[in-house]
Amino acid sequence: MTDFIENAARNLELVRERKPLVHNITNYVVMNSTANALLAAGASPVMAHAINEVEEMVAIAGALVLNIGTLDDAWVASMVRAAARASALGKPIVLDPVGAGATRLRTDASKTIIAEAAPAVIRGNASEVLALGDGVFDTKGVDSVHDVADAAASASALARELGTVLAITGPEDLVTDGRRTVRIVNGHRLMGAVTGTGCTATALVGAFLAVDVDPLSAAATALAYYGLAGEVAATRAAAPGSYAVALIDALYTIDGEKLRAGARIAEEG
Amino acid sequence: MTDFIENAARNLELVRERKPLVHNITNYVVMNSTANALLAAGASPVMAHAINEVEEMVAIAGALVLNIGTLDDAWVASMVRAAARASALGKPIVLDPVGAGATRLRTDASKTIIAEAAPAVIRGNASEVLALGDGVFDTKGVDSVHDVADAAASASALARELGTVLAITGPEDLVTDGRRTVRIVNGHRLMGAVTGTGCTATALVGAFLAVDVDPLSAAATALAYYGLAGEVAATRAAAPGSYAVALIDALYTIDGEKLRAGARIAEEG
Amino acid sequence: MTDFIENAARNLELVRERKPLVHNITNYVVMNSTANALLAAGASPVMAHAINEVEEMVAIAGALVLNIGTLDDAWVASMVRAAARASALGKPIVLDPVGAGATRLRTDASKTIIAEAAPAVIRGNASEVLALGDGVFDTKGVDSVHDVADAAASASALARELGTVLAITGPEDLVTDGRRTVRIVNGHRLMGAVTGTGCTATALVGAFLAVDVDPLSAAATALAYYGLAGEVAATRAAAPGSYAVALIDALYTIDGEKLRAGARIAEEG
Repeated sequence: MTDFIENAARNLELVRERKPLVHNITNYVVMNSTANALLAAGASPVMAHAINEVEEMVAIAGALVLNIGTLDDAWVASMVRAAARASALGKPIVLDPVGAGATRLRTDASKTIIAEAAPAVIRGNASEVLALGDGVFDTKGVDSVHDVADAAASASALARELGTVLAITGPEDLVTDGRRTVRIVNGHRLMGAVTGTGCTATALVGAFLAVDVDPLSAAATALAYYGLAGEVAATRAAAPGSYAVALIDALYTIDGEKLRAGARIAEEG
Repeated sequence: MTDFIENAARNLELVRERKPLVHNITNYVVMNSTANALLAAGASPVMAHAINEVEEMVAIAGALVLNIGTLDDAWVASMVRAAARASALGKPIVLDPVGAGATRLRTDASKTIIAEAAPAVIRGNASEVLALGDGVFDTKGVDSVHDVADAAASASALARELGTVLAITGPEDLVTDGRRTVRIVNGHRLMGAVTGTGCTATALVGAFLAVDVDPLSAAATALAYYGLAGEVAATRAAAPGSYAVALIDALYTIDGEKLRAGARIAEEG
Repeated sequence: MTDFIENAARNLELVRERKPLVHNITNYVVMNSTANALLAAGASPVMAHAINEVEEMVAIAGALVLNIGTLDDAWVASMVRAAARASALGKPIVLDPVGAGATRLRTDASKTIIAEAAPAVIRGNASEVLALGDGVFDTKGVDSVHDVADAAASASALARELGTVLAITGPEDLVTDGRRTVRIVNGHRLMGAVTGTGCTATALVGAFLAVDVDPLSAAATALAYYGLAGEVAATRAAAPGSYAVALIDALYTIDGEKLRAGARIAEEG
């Protein structure tokens, strides 16, 4: 069995050592906060969305992060263009289908990107991820109305159907490729009171994908790292303004050794 | 007479209870900070501007926030489209005419949105709001060159003319529907040293509109809540970086009881 | 010889006194943080990019800041339009060629803007600035792979060729117009762990250009001011989340006297 705890420490150390360029085509709300999170983790973020630039940018990147939080048709076209080039070059892709299920545009854009891009990992809350299958479409905005426990039964089948790793985050995180299923119990409830924490989780998965050839391991270990940062931040701050600041600090101060001691990842079965 | 102090406490408690989805079509500068302010208040923010999505998104929202801070023609078209749908569905709209009076595009876009959208509330500084009438156009950028006292005489007439509530913020805030006029004296001068505090005030008015059928009451109570947060933040921070963080913390920690004790709203006449 | 230390203090005091409107056409990642930095410095920031607005906006501004961090063709067209109007009106322009050398779009857009706009100052890291000449194009994303020492030999010649001031930032900053060369040794390594600190340096150069007719002096003094803020922030914070907050606080609390005491600017030769 994979030693996810050891992988977590190794992935963080590799990101710090190699400083992979992570190419983000992401939403306006989180561009600043995810760039800062990637820097704190040790990666090198770049945000670039122009249709006549994305192929060249992704070619020098270690991973591609696609996030549809403030999508429109032009941005989706750039995402598809970048993803096709990334796939051709064997660069890993992570998709964040923000608000899939809430509007047709978001659900359709997510499905288009999945069909064209073959993402290594899809990271969302339970509602968003389940909206990518044939489930019930009852998302309220961008907040999840399913919990991870409800989602577990469907997620494994959907992962096999889509041929990807699904990373469903919530009070407890679930990562599955349809064969292996991993649960991560790091995290803190205040993360939900800060905008873009889901998007940051996705960006960190991107950084870890750049250094770990196993997408399930990259996703699970990145979520454990971010969840542990959430726990550390809660020892410093009790309200979301100062908590958001402490989260970035914690991403920076956690090292491989601390992550080895604090990561709580368990494989099922 | 309306008991605005009691309404302030009740509105905050209702936002925390119902977590209304607030649909923002807003400017790039403040998307992150207003999303965090809405979350701290207890609302559920979503930013969505695609012309082929806004009607569907506003249909599941409790209120629509329109902010022209970094407008261009495509964004204004989306705002008009969303507003028409919101009006048809009876969803309240608040408009922030950032920089109206500074350029023709901003003044014209504001007037177009008002004509098409019938916003329940318009929130701006004195220069911006008076630029919506036939006043002198001497705005310097996005900062107000009028004070609230100068504006009071004109505001009531303009509110009647436009058939809306005008919320003019400054050292003292003035809210009028042309019949009733309310002054709010909460707030702190450091709020002016943080970018987007006006935009955040507008977003909070949106959240309160989702739970209060009286737009005058929604606007006045949201401004008192934000102003009180500004006062609380000033007890924690004396420079704008840490003050911005403390403002979000204060929005989160203020509850109905604290707002009842601290809100300073007075109706005239 | 120019007394740069005295100019630094005077420029900061003039910005505080005159509150110049600084018109930014900049990238999505840093709009919020650079607006807050400009406010903390005492300037009045406005972000406006619509092609049918930029000429009117720049006409009421004291300086124009162009930053290609998240460029696309439409934004570059607006930058060129705004720059032509600024030049006609004698308003100073500062360009930040983010990622020049990393993709053709960025290198070409930078060269187009330089040809059309005649910027008073270009601020970038060594890789970005050298990509504007005939140097080797080996930029890795938006992070510099050259250091200031390597760049010094080329920079002076390039400044003469382009007829502009080049401000190259790194562990040590270099500012040259091809005749005079100045080094600034203020700053702290944690600035590199926060996204957009280079962009903020550029925006502050814009604010100082609005009050100093000598572009070399404006650039050198703005970099000393920001570098000193970086040093002050490091006495308050040791990780990048809290450090970013402390940086804004430091920009606000540093006054002319503190800058006179702390600025470390040395002219060569």
